[in-house]
Amino acid sequence: MELGLGLIGSGFMGRTHAFAFNNVARVFNLPVKVQPVMLADVGEEQAARAAAAFGFAESTADWRRLVADPRIHIVSVTSPNLLHKEMALAAIAAGKHVYCEKPLAPKASEAEEMARAAEAKGVVTAVGFNYLKNPMMRLAKEIIDSGEIGEIRAFSGIHTEDFMMDTEAPWTWRLDPAGGGGALADLGSHLIAAARYLVGPVAEVCGEVATLVATRPDGAGSAKRKPVEVEDIGRAFLRFENGCNGVLEASWIAGGRKMRQDLEITGSRGSIAYCGERMNELDLYVTSDKAGRDGFRKILAGPANEPYGAFCVAPGHQLGFNDLKTIEVCDLVRAIAGEETGHADFREGLEVQRTLEAIYRSVEGGWTRVS
Amino acid sequence: MELGLGLIGSGFMGRTHAFAFNNVARVFNLPVKVQPVMLADVGEEQAARAAAAFGFAESTADWRRLVADPRIHIVSVTSPNLLHKEMALAAIAAGKHVYCEKPLAPKASEAEEMARAAEAKGVVTAVGFNYLKNPMMRLAKEIIDSGEIGEIRAFSGIHTEDFMMDTEAPWTWRLDPAGGGGALADLGSHLIAAARYLVGPVAEVCGEVATLVATRPDGAGSAKRKPVEVEDIGRAFLRFENGCNGVLEASWIAGGRKMRQDLEITGSRGSIAYCGERMNELDLYVTSDKAGRDGFRKILAGPANEPYGAFCVAPGHQLGFNDLKTIEVCDLVRAIAGEETGHADFREGLEVQRTLEAIYRSVEGGWTRVS
Amino acid sequence: MELGLGLIGSGFMGRTHAFAFNNVARVFNLPVKVQPVMLADVGEEQAARAAAAFGFAESTADWRRLVADPRIHIVSVTSPNLLHKEMALAAIAAGKHVYCEKPLAPKASEAEEMARAAEAKGVVTAVGFNYLKNPMMRLAKEIIDSGEIGEIRAFSGIHTEDFMMDTEAPWTWRLDPAGGGGALADLGSHLIAAARYLVGPVAEVCGEVATLVATRPDGAGSAKRKPVEVEDIGRAFLRFENGCNGVLEASWIAGGRKMRQDLEITGSRGSIAYCGERMNELDLYVTSDKAGRDGFRKILAGPANEPYGAFCVAPGHQLGFNDLKTIEVCDLVRAIAGEETGHADFREGLEVQRTLEAIYRSVEGGWTRVS
Amino acid sequence: MELGLGLIGSGFMGRTHAFAFNNVARVFNLPVKVQPVMLADVGEEQAARAAAAFGFAESTADWRRLVADPRIHIVSVTSPNLLHKEMALAAIAAGKHVYCEKPLAPKASEAEEMARAAEAKGVVTAVGFNYLKNPMMRLAKEIIDSGEIGEIRAFSGIHTEDFMMDTEAPWTWRLDPAGGGGALADLGSHLIAAARYLVGPVAEVCGEVATLVATRPDGAGSAKRKPVEVEDIGRAFLRFENGCNGVLEASWIAGGRKMRQDLEITGSRGSIAYCGERMNELDLYVTSDKAGRDGFRKILAGPANEPYGAFCVAPGHQLGFNDLKTIEVCDLVRAIAGEETGHADFREGLEVQRTLEAIYRSVEGGWTRVS
Repeated sequence: MELGLGLIGSGFMGRTHAFAFNNVARVFNLPVKVQPVMLADVGEEQAARAAAAFGFAESTADWRRLVADPRIHIVSVTSPNLLHKEMALAAIAAGKHVYCEKPLAPKASEAEEMARAAEAKGVVTAVGFNYLKNPMMRLAKEIIDSGEIGEIRAFSGIHTEDFMMDTEAPWTWRLDPAGGGGALADLGSHLIAAARYLVGPVAEVCGEVATLVATRPDGAGSAKRKPVEVEDIGRAFLRFENGCNGVLEASWIAGGRKMRQDLEITGSRGSIAYCGERMNELDLYVTSDKAGRDGFRKILAGPANEPYGAFCVAPGHQLGFNDLKTIEVCDLVRAIAGEETGHADFREGLEVQRTLEAIYRSVEGGWTRVS
Repeated sequence: MELGLGLIGSGFMGRTHAFAFNNVARVFNLPVKVQPVMLADVGEEQAARAAAAFGFAESTADWRRLVADPRIHIVSVTSPNLLHKEMALAAIAAGKHVYCEKPLAPKASEAEEMARAAEAKGVVTAVGFNYLKNPMMRLAKEIIDSGEIGEIRAFSGIHTEDFMMDTEAPWTWRLDPAGGGGALADLGSHLIAAARYLVGPVAEVCGEVATLVATRPDGAGSAKRKPVEVEDIGRAFLRFENGCNGVLEASWIAGGRKMRQDLEITGSRGSIAYCGERMNELDLYVTSDKAGRDGFRKILAGPANEPYGAFCVAPGHQLGFNDLKTIEVCDLVRAIAGEETGHADFREGLEVQRTLEAIYRSVEGGWTRVS
Repeated sequence: MELGLGLIGSGFMGRTHAFAFNNVARVFNLPVKVQPVMLADVGEEQAARAAAAFGFAESTADWRRLVADPRIHIVSVTSPNLLHKEMALAAIAAGKHVYCEKPLAPKASEAEEMARAAEAKGVVTAVGFNYLKNPMMRLAKEIIDSGEIGEIRAFSGIHTEDFMMDTEAPWTWRLDPAGGGGALADLGSHLIAAARYLVGPVAEVCGEVATLVATRPDGAGSAKRKPVEVEDIGRAFLRFENGCNGVLEASWIAGGRKMRQDLEITGSRGSIAYCGERMNELDLYVTSDKAGRDGFRKILAGPANEPYGAFCVAPGHQLGFNDLKTIEVCDLVRAIAGEETGHADFREGLEVQRTLEAIYRSVEGGWTRVS
Repeated sequence: MELGLGLIGSGFMGRTHAFAFNNVARVFNLPVKVQPVMLADVGEEQAARAAAAFGFAESTADWRRLVADPRIHIVSVTSPNLLHKEMALAAIAAGKHVYCEKPLAPKASEAEEMARAAEAKGVVTAVGFNYLKNPMMRLAKEIIDSGEIGEIRAFSGIHTEDFMMDTEAPWTWRLDPAGGGGALADLGSHLIAAARYLVGPVAEVCGEVATLVATRPDGAGSAKRKPVEVEDIGRAFLRFENGCNGVLEASWIAGGRKMRQDLEITGSRGSIAYCGERMNELDLYVTSDKAGRDGFRKILAGPANEPYGAFCVAPGHQLGFNDLKTIEVCDLVRAIAGEETGHADFREGLEVQRTLEAIYRSVEGGWTRVS
C-alpha cells in the first residue's frame, strides 16, 4: 500500500514532520509506504524552497489545493495554532487522515468539532504529543500498569523553558490570547497529556496563572510595546478520576531551563522520576529492593525499551527529539493500516484541551470539573 | 561570659541540640561560653542516661525544675510539638532565652502568644529552621539580594520524604490532628521558612491536601487500625507581598525521597536551583553569561560561603546536617551576646505558622490572605 | 550534482549509514544529492531484504559487483573489520569515494595502505568516528582552540560499556585476535580519536591490558568454550606532542555502563568535562568566573552549537546517536563537493590506528613512540 | 576509663582532630572518656590561642613536653609531614597511643620504623585516612565482601582537586621534594588506601608523573620564582595480589574539582561507583536486577549505614567531612579500649607508603613490585 502525504507548514514542526515521514520507512518495517506529494506554505517561493528541501515533488501557496488533491491521503497540519481547525476540518471533509500539531484548537469546543468530524468521517487522526512517544514514557506506563510501584497516589509535572524570559523578547503569535493561552497551553498541555497517559483522566482542577512580563516589544527591536495577555507561568492542582492527586507547573520564563519536563509518579510501593532534559533516562524506586540497597535506579534507554531498538541496537546510545516524531509517524501509519496503536488521536487532543480549559476556568472559580 | 544550658528532650532533635552546643565552642570563636547544666526528659532514668551521654551534669524528669533553675540561661525545647508552648512560656516567664524546635505550636494564635511573651520579656529566641543555616542558603540569599538574577519572579519548593509511605507504618504523634497538621506542617513549614527567607513574606495562599493512607496500625504491628486525619501530601500556590508568585509541595509518602528539599527561584536575569539531598551544592544560572557558554553552574560549598570555613578550610569537603544545627546555635549565642544575626526567632516562627494556617484555611475557601 | 551510493553491510552500522544517507538531504542543505543505488550483503536474500527496507533499488551478494558499478560514486563499508581493507581498496581502485567504519584495518600498516591508495587516487574518504560529530565535541574543540580554558595540560578519557561482562556472553568476531585487539581497539579507538581531535597528536604511550574472562562459549549456549585472546580492559598513559599528558581507559565489562564516554580536559584556566551517556551536555569550568560564583556550568546543546540547529530549533530537545551519523555523512558529502570540512578521513583513521598499535606494543616494552 | 589527649598542631587537621575528639563522646557511646590536656604548636602564643579555642587546659610551644606529660595517653600528630616521624617515635617511646595524619613519613622506610616501634611498644596507632570512615565506604566494602557484585575485576580511582592550578599559587611545603612527593603522595595516597580497603593489597604498579607548573612564586606575591620538583599529576596502573587490576589518577591542578574522589569497582556481577563530592551517595549496579529494570541505583546514606545513625536518625540528611574524623577518633578510642576495629593503623599507613613509593620508582623503571 502506498499513501500520498501533504504537508502544510515548514517551520519548526513542519520540518520535524518532513524528517519523520522521510525517516520512518527506513527505521520501521511498515505495511504502508508514504510518499511525499505536496507541501503548502505561505507564499509560492517559500513553499517551493521547502518542498525541494524536504523532498516533496510539488508545492503550493494554497493549502486548499493540497487538501483537495486526490493523490494525497494524509495531511500534516503544522501551521500556526489558529489555523489548525479550518485546515483539519477541510482535510477530514476531503476524507484525508490528519496529523495535527497540538493544540488542536484554542477552544475545546473547536477541538470537539474536529474530533467529531474525524470520527464521523472515519479517518485516522493524530495529535503531536510527541513526548509520549519516548520509549522511556512507554516504560513508565508499563511499570505503572504492571503494578510494580503499587497503587498510584500522586503525579507531579513541571515543564519549564526560558525562551520568553527576556523582557525584550518580542511579542509573537504565541502571546495572542485568541490562541487559547500562554505557557500552560503551550507547555502545560504536554504535562496534561503525560498525566492522562500515565495516570488517567483528570476529574477536577484548580489553577492559577501569572504574567510577569507585562508588555513586550511589538516586533524585534521595536520601541513600541504591546501588552501581554496570556500567562508566563501557570500551575494547577489535579484530582484524577481514579483518586490520585497531582500538580503541574508550566513556565516559559524559567531561566536556564531549556526542555525541563520533569515528571514524578508516586505509588504505594515505589516511584518513577523522569527529566525531560535527559530523555534517555528513567529513575525507578521500588520498595521491594532489599533494605540498605534501595535507591532510585537509573534505567538507560536501550533495545529493551521499544521501539528504541528500531533506531539503535546498543543501549545508552540515545535517541533524540526527532526520533520521537518518527515514532509518532510510525504509530499514525500503523493505525491507518488498521493496527491498534493507542496513540493520541483527536479525541485525546480534545480531552487534553478540555482539561486545559477547565484549568483556565478554575483560575477564577476555584476547583472546577473537567467537562 | 558563661551561660548555663538546659535541654528538654533527648530524641532526634534533642541529640542534635546537644551535639551543636557541644560543637559550637570549638568551631566558632564565640563571645559567650555555654555550659550544659541540666537535661530533662520523661522518666528519671532516661533523663539520666541522656545527660551522661550528652555531657550534662544533672538530669531531671521534671522540666519545670529545669526551667526554674537559676544556673540555666538558655532553654532548648525539643519535646513533642504539643508541649512546646507550655514549656517555652514557662522558660520565658523565668527570663530564659529559648531555642525551640519548629513548629512553635500547632496554632498561630499560640505561636503569637509565645512570640509576644518573649518580646515582652526581652529574651532572645530561636526556632529550629535549621536548613536556613546552610551556607548555600545564605549564598542563595546573597545572590538574590544583590540583584544578580534580577527581579525575583517565581518560587518553587518541594520537600518530600518517604518515611510514612508504607501503609503499615504505625500511627504516631505526627498524625495527631491536635498537632496542627501533617506533611505540610512537618515538611512544608521548612519550605515556607525558605520562601520567606529568600523571597519575602507571603501575602495570599491557595492550598490543597490529600490523605492517601486512610488508616494506620495503632502501634507497630497492631492489628487495630486508627484513622489518619492529617494530610500525607499538601500543596499551595503562593502570592508574595512583593508580587512574586510560587508553589510548594510537601509529602511524606514520596517513595525514594529521603530529604528532598528542592528549591528553584526564578528571576528576570537568572535562576537558582537547590536540592536538599545535595546540600553542599547550589546551581546558578545567569543570563549575563556569554551566549553559547550559558548553563547552570554548580557551585560547591567552600570557605567562600560563610560560615563553611569555620568547619573546614577546603572547599568541596562538605558539611552535614549536624553542622547546620551548630550554625543555628552559633547564631543564637551571638544574638544573646547582642549581635545582629537576623536568625529565625519566635516572631519568624509565628509568621511561618500564620502562612501555614492560611494554607489550611484555603483548602476549603480558596485564595486566603495570610494574617 | 547527484551521486550514487553503494552500501556494503546491513548490520548495526549498515543501518545507521542507510538512515544517515536518507536523512541528510532533509536536514542539511547540501550541494550534492545522494541516491541509494545498491546494497550488498552476505546472501542474496538478506541483501534484498535490507535493500527493500533501506530504499536501495538493487541488491547483491557480490560486493565486487557493487564496487564496480559505474552508477555508484560513494561506497559505504560497514562489513566486519577484517574485510574493510579489501573492500575499501577495491572501491578506491574503482575511483569511488569511501566511507568506512572504524577501525580501518587491524594493522596500521594496512590502514596506511588504504590511506595512501585513497590519496593517490584522489578520492574522498571518511572513517566512522561518529562521536566527534556531536555538536558538544565541536563546542569543546572551539573552547579549547579559543584559549578559553588556557593552555591544555591534561586529557582523561574513559570509554566503558558492559556488553561483554557476562562470562557466558559467547565468543564473537570481536574477540578474534586477527581483528587487531579487544576493548582498546573497539572502544579505546574512540578515545584516541577524541584525544587527537581535542588536544592533538599523541607522541608516546604506555599501556596495559587485561583479560578477565579467559574463555567464552563457542557460540550462544554452547558447552564448548573458546579461549579469549584479546583484552577486556585496556589502559594507556599518553604524552601528546604539545606537551600535554593524559590517560585513557577502555572496558567492555564495566557493569552498568552502556555508553560511558567520559572526557575531561584540564587547562591552565579551566576545564571541560563530558559524559557520553549524556551526549547533549558539556560541563565547562573557567577560572574567570567571579570568586564564589565559580563552578562547572552545564551547557545544554542547542542551535548555538552547530549543526544542532539543522535538526531542531529549540535547545535542550536533544540529538540522538543516529543524528551523529547524519552529521558524519553531511561532512563526507560536503567534502566530496569540495568543501573543507576537517572531518576524519583515512589519514586520520591511520593515525588513530598507529596510536593504538603503539599502545599494544608498549604493553610489553613500556613507553613507546607512536610511529 | 579516662584518657588524656595531647594535640600537636592546630592547622586544618589540628582543628578537625580537636573537633572530632570533642564530638565523639556525644555522638558515640564510648567505653573511654578522652580529656583534652595539652596542645602544642609553634610559638607559645599561637599554642595558647588554639588551646583556648579547642578546650585544652594547657598549651606549649615544646611538643616534647607534651609527649612526656604523664597525664597524656593519646598524642595526635597533625604537624607538617616532615615532623611526623620524630614526634610519633617520641610519643611511642613514651608509651602513648598515636593518631598521626597521613602520610606517616616521606619514606616507607621511615614509616616502617614508626610501625615497628609502635608494635614493639604495644601502643595503639591510627593514621588519618578519614575517607575510609565514610559509611558509604563501609557499605561498599560490605557489598564487595558479600559477593553481591561477584568477583572483583577492576578498580578505578580518581582524586582531583584544583588548589594548585593557578600558576601564581605560591610554593608551599607541599612542594618540598623532601616531603615525599606531590599530588600522588597528597591525594593519591587516599586512593591507595581506598583500593587496599576495598579490593586488597597491590602487588605491582606502573606509574607516571607530570609537573605542569614548572616554577611558582617563592611566597605569596613574590616576584622570585622557585622550581617545582614534585608532580602536579600522577597516575598508576595497579595489579592487585588477588588478580584484580586497576588505575588511579591524582591531580591538584584539575580546574573545578574540589574534592573529586571518584571510585569505581567492577565485579563479575555488578559495579559500585562513588563520587567524593557527593559523599552521602553510593551507586550500585547488580546484574541480578530484572532485565529492563536494571541501572545504577543511588543509595542515600542513612541509619542503615553504620555509623550514620549515631549522628542522625533520618536518612538523606547527610554527614559532613568533620563527621568522618569523629568516626576515625571513635575507632581509635575503641581500639584503645580493646575492641577490634580494623581501622587504618601505622602498619596500614606503611603499606600505603610502600605502594606509593613503588609507584614513584616505577616512573623510571616500568612495572615495579610493591615491597
